[in-house]
Amino acid sequence: MQADREPVFGGKDWPPHYTFVPAVRAGNTVYLSGTTATDDQGRITAPGDIVEQTRQIFRKFGQLLASLGGSCEDIVVTTDFFTTTKDYAKTAEVRREFFVKNRPTSTGVMVAGLLRKEALIEISAIAVLRGDHR
Amino acid sequence: MQADREPVFGGKDWPPHYTFVPAVRAGNTVYLSGTTATDDQGRITAPGDIVEQTRQIFRKFGQLLASLGGSCEDIVVTTDFFTTTKDYAKTAEVRREFFVKNRPTSTGVMVAGLLRKEALIEISAIAVLRGDHR
Amino acid sequence: MQADREPVFGGKDWPPHYTFVPAVRAGNTVYLSGTTATDDQGRITAPGDIVEQTRQIFRKFGQLLASLGGSCEDIVVTTDFFTTTKDYAKTAEVRREFFVKNRPTSTGVMVAGLLRKEALIEISAIAVLRGDHR
Repeated sequence: MQADREPVFGGKDWPPHYTFVPAVRAGNTVYLSGTTATDDQGRITAPGDIVEQTRQIFRKFGQLLASLGGSCEDIVVTTDFFTTTKDYAKTAEVRREFFVKNRPTSTGVMVAGLLRKEALIEISAIAVLRGDHR
Repeated sequence: MQADREPVFGGKDWPPHYTFVPAVRAGNTVYLSGTTATDDQGRITAPGDIVEQTRQIFRKFGQLLASLGGSCEDIVVTTDFFTTTKDYAKTAEVRREFFVKNRPTSTGVMVAGLLRKEALIEISAIAVLRGDHR
Repeated sequence: MQADREPVFGGKDWPPHYTFVPAVRAGNTVYLSGTTATDDQGRITAPGDIVEQTRQIFRKFGQLLASLGGSCEDIVVTTDFFTTTKDYAKTAEVRREFFVKNRPTSTGVMVAGLLRKEALIEISAIAVLRGDHR
């Protein structure tokens, strides 16, 4: 069991002064940071729309995993932290878009707040890549 | 390091339209979804009783892990999300029932809400199976 | 893929009646319990100071990982649960002290409460040890 490890940036610039990275691959496991629906300029993409925010988050996960030869279908765990339950049930439609072949586990809780004020949801995830990516 | 993966249903029916599964096994690691104290009909089993709700959650984890040849003794991580601290300390007695040989790690935080209104606690977990289950 | 497993105490006494352990090593992966800034007597070390509380938490993680031949540089995932956003951004300076070579992922959410009243932050983590620690 090797523990080779690399940060994962998905082909994008990442500020060197940030004290975390978007994802870390350790062996075949990929840990994905808690992610909100920001665009490349760091702006929340769909203020007030939890469904579209969820879609943007999985798009970002998809880009990160694609850079490792994977996709959102490799996600095994999702943890949703949301600030409202309004329309949360509708985020299932987004999961159906990204999880066609494989369904991950899910944990979802309402929190007291997220760091980004416009963010309605933050999702962290774990993926396990198929094949041998070491 | 293989990344073979399978959803885990513990021998029970699971709605195909659900966008998550109760657990996923990836290699020897089993990721367990955030779980509340529901019975087979989806009803919260012990409204107002966080201790009995916790017991029901570990029963459900036990059934899932048993279907893989394991048990709650294989759990290495538990994360408790609760909506009240009242009687939370008493859930330790339930852990003593299920964790006789091996104690897992624990994280516990009070959240602003859970999706199921009668749920006082939701627990997610990670287990690592002994032996070679690939 | 072996699933050898051991509790990790970092060379300190740990009450046998506790129903969790500070960390569990399973193969090369180390799961670290949600941890608050307590000293060896269980007292919160820096009431009101989220930065110093964060430093104490990573000190404790460092001691646990050192007992396995590792360090905080092996951490791949951190999850921060905090009760205030005041000065939370300043905890980045602590991360820069402990994560010099490797940056982990990060998830951070404000929760409704922590079990220890003086605790402003609780952090859980996952580390992956380099080399072969089995």
